[in-house]
Amino acid sequence: GAPGAPGYGGFPGQQQDPLYGYFSAVAGQDGQISAEELQTCLSQANFSGGYKPFNLETCRLMINMLDRDMSGQMGFNEFKELWAVINGWKQHFMSIDRDQSGTVDPQEMHQSVASMGYRLSPQAMNCIIKRYSTQGKITFDDYVACCVRLRSLTDLFRKRDQAQQGMATFNYDDFIQCTMSA
Amino acid sequence: GAPGAPGYGGFPGQQQDPLYGYFSAVAGQDGQISAEELQTCLSQANFSGGYKPFNLETCRLMINMLDRDMSGQMGFNEFKELWAVINGWKQHFMSIDRDQSGTVDPQEMHQSVASMGYRLSPQAMNCIIKRYSTQGKITFDDYVACCVRLRSLTDLFRKRDQAQQGMATFNYDDFIQCTMSA
Repeated sequence: GAPGAPGYGGFPGQQQDPLYGYFSAVAGQDGQISAEELQTCLSQANFSGGYKPFNLETCRLMINMLDRDMSGQMGFNEFKELWAVINGWKQHFMSIDRDQSGTVDPQEMHQSVASMGYRLSPQAMNCIIKRYSTQGKITFDDYVACCVRLRSLTDLFRKRDQAQQGMATFNYDDFIQCTMSA
Repeated sequence: GAPGAPGYGGFPGQQQDPLYGYFSAVAGQDGQISAEELQTCLSQANFSGGYKPFNLETCRLMINMLDRDMSGQMGFNEFKELWAVINGWKQHFMSIDRDQSGTVDPQEMHQSVASMGYRLSPQAMNCIIKRYSTQGKITFDDYVACCVRLRSLTDLFRKRDQAQQGMATFNYDDFIQCTMSA
C-alpha cells in the first residue's frame, strides 16, 4: 500500500502524532504503560523542564485519574489526555512561580486552587496546603499530585452526589476503593 | 537537685526514655517534628533496617495519622505511639518477607491486610494492591504507607458512621479534608 494508507505499518493516525514516539518507545508490545513506565516516559520527554521529576506516587495517581477500566495501565488516548491536562497545570504553575524557583507559596497555591473552580473552606484549603508543602513551599511534583487528587476525588464524589446537593453517602468498602485509588 | 529528680534538666521521664534522644536531636527547640524531620529521624535510627528508607509522602501520612490537632507536627508522645505502631508493622512485614528480598507478593499483602481485621471485598483489596505495587511487588515503604492510610481512612469513616451500619454521609468539604489528610 501507499505510505500512510491503512495497513501500512499499523496505526497511521497515531504514528503521525508527535507524542506517539515517546509513548510507544516506553509502552512496548502491549501498547499500555504502567506507573513506572509513565515516570520514565515523562522524564525522557523532559516534561518537568527545570523542575524536579515526578515521583512514582504522583505517576500512579495520574494513571488512576484516567484509568476507567481500573487496569492500572494507560493506553495512548489516555496518555494524550493526560499530557494535555498536565501541560495546562505546568503553564499554570510556571505563571505562579515567577522567580523560577521551582516552588510556590501556600498563598499562591490557595489562589491557584480557587481559580480552578474548587469551592473549599479555609480549613480544607489549609489541610491541602499542609499536606503538599515541604518547608513551607510547594514543588511542581507536589502541585501536580495535589491537582490530580483534587480532580479525581471531586469526580468520585460528584458521581455519588446524585441530587447535586453537595452530600454523598458511601458504604465502607466503596469509601476505601475511592480513597485508595485517588 | 539530685540527678533524676524533678527540675534536673527538664523532663526526667522523657529523658530516661531511650527514644527521646533520637526525637529531641531532630525536633530541636520547638519539641515538635515535621514530616521532613521525621524522615531524617527514622533514617538516622536506621528504622528501615535493610529496607529502603521511608519517602516523604509516607512520613506525611504517618504524621497525619496521629495529628489530632492538625498542626502537621508531632510531639514526643505521638512519636512514641508511632514508633510502636510501625514496629508492629515491621515485624509483620519481616514475617511475610521470608526470603528477605525487601518486598512481598500481592497474595501475601492480601493475607496481611485481612489478618489485621479489615473486612474488604476482593475489588477493594485489588484496588489497594494495585495502588501499592511496583512491578508486581510491595516494598516496606509502600506497605507502611498502605497500613497508615487504611487505618486513618477507617478511623475517619467510623467517626461518621454513628449507627455502625457501614454507611457514612459526607459533605463535599469534609470529604476533601478527610481524603486529603489521609
